[in-house]
Amino acid sequence: MPKFVLHYFDARGRGEPARLLFAVAGIPFQDRRVSQEEWPAIKPKIPGGTLPYLEVEGVGITQSMVIYRHLARLFGLDGDTVLDKAHVEEITEYLIEMKIKYMSGLAFPPKDDEEKLKQLKEEFMTKLQACCCQIDRILQTNKSTEGWAVGKKLTFADIMMFEAFEHVLSSMPEVLDKYPRIQKCRKKLQSLKKLQEYLSKRKVTAF
Amino acid sequence: MPKFVLHYFDARGRGEPARLLFAVAGIPFQDRRVSQEEWPAIKPKIPGGTLPYLEVEGVGITQSMVIYRHLARLFGLDGDTVLDKAHVEEITEYLIEMKIKYMSGLAFPPKDDEEKLKQLKEEFMTKLQACCCQIDRILQTNKSTEGWAVGKKLTFADIMMFEAFEHVLSSMPEVLDKYPRIQKCRKKLQSLKKLQEYLSKRKVTAF
Repeated sequence: MPKFVLHYFDARGRGEPARLLFAVAGIPFQDRRVSQEEWPAIKPKIPGGTLPYLEVEGVGITQSMVIYRHLARLFGLDGDTVLDKAHVEEITEYLIEMKIKYMSGLAFPPKDDEEKLKQLKEEFMTKLQACCCQIDRILQTNKSTEGWAVGKKLTFADIMMFEAFEHVLSSMPEVLDKYPRIQKCRKKLQSLKKLQEYLSKRKVTAF
Repeated sequence: MPKFVLHYFDARGRGEPARLLFAVAGIPFQDRRVSQEEWPAIKPKIPGGTLPYLEVEGVGITQSMVIYRHLARLFGLDGDTVLDKAHVEEITEYLIEMKIKYMSGLAFPPKDDEEKLKQLKEEFMTKLQACCCQIDRILQTNKSTEGWAVGKKLTFADIMMFEAFEHVLSSMPEVLDKYPRIQKCRKKLQSLKKLQEYLSKRKVTAF
């Protein structure tokens, strides 16, 4: 395996799906956490000026979703068949849509503005339900009894299903009550020793 | 090859990259163009309720970028090596970012509001330059002399580079003047007979 350096801030955010891919695949990588103090000096050196940024043997890859899919392909976590690959990508796109909606609103609730908070919650729940309905529909097409999201094997879809709901569930523990299939996949992933080991050592950050 | 049905509105929009993939690959498909009158009755039957929607032998695939990448994989237009695939995806992500910015603003210029129009132009040009700089950087890493965007062969990156600038160039013909490498890839694609045939028969729509 080549040598990997993942550059991201000292947070989970858009870096964590990549870190989880490394952890679950059991592939070592340099977890370069850029502090807010360092960032202004580092930003001009990063192509596109945003993080995450992945270096693979000196070759740089930008765009968070491209980085995740690249790692998933390298680690054989992108789905076995062409249709599996499409389903993995569909699930992850819905999860990212949901996560973006959360991070751009409800993750930072307004103080002393009940009306605004109520509106943000409603908007987010509409998005979450739309995304979960689509994911649930795709999970139902999987005829394998192994319990993974797509096909017979662990894929990036399972990892992303775990990660995307982490913060959401900490503030709204009931959001997946209507989606037992999604819960089941998340539990299946959480039963992996490699994931448990990673989580037990993971630095605690707010996001 | 399986039987394909592409459902989209009677416009280029988010449907056209998929149509171009079919055209350039020489793969027949049913180009199901949904009229605005039909849409309210059809919308509830489409998973997720948005278009484009692709049916492959009765299996449905949602999410525009997933549809494009699925077709690119089926047609061998997703890049040869794992790194090529990442570069194809990086280029297409930057193009989609640029296209979204264009379609959410400058594509529908405000009437009688010079100040707002100026602001939209500035914002769009900032985005376009940021995206083109990154694409140009990736094009420079291609050591092949074939003239395609990534590796030695035509990929979805070339198709998307042609498509994403189509409407932009019709209203601002100078935007690629500083990016000869991007222009060269677009010309290379435009030299393909299959593309020329498709374009000569394509229904003319505003977007």
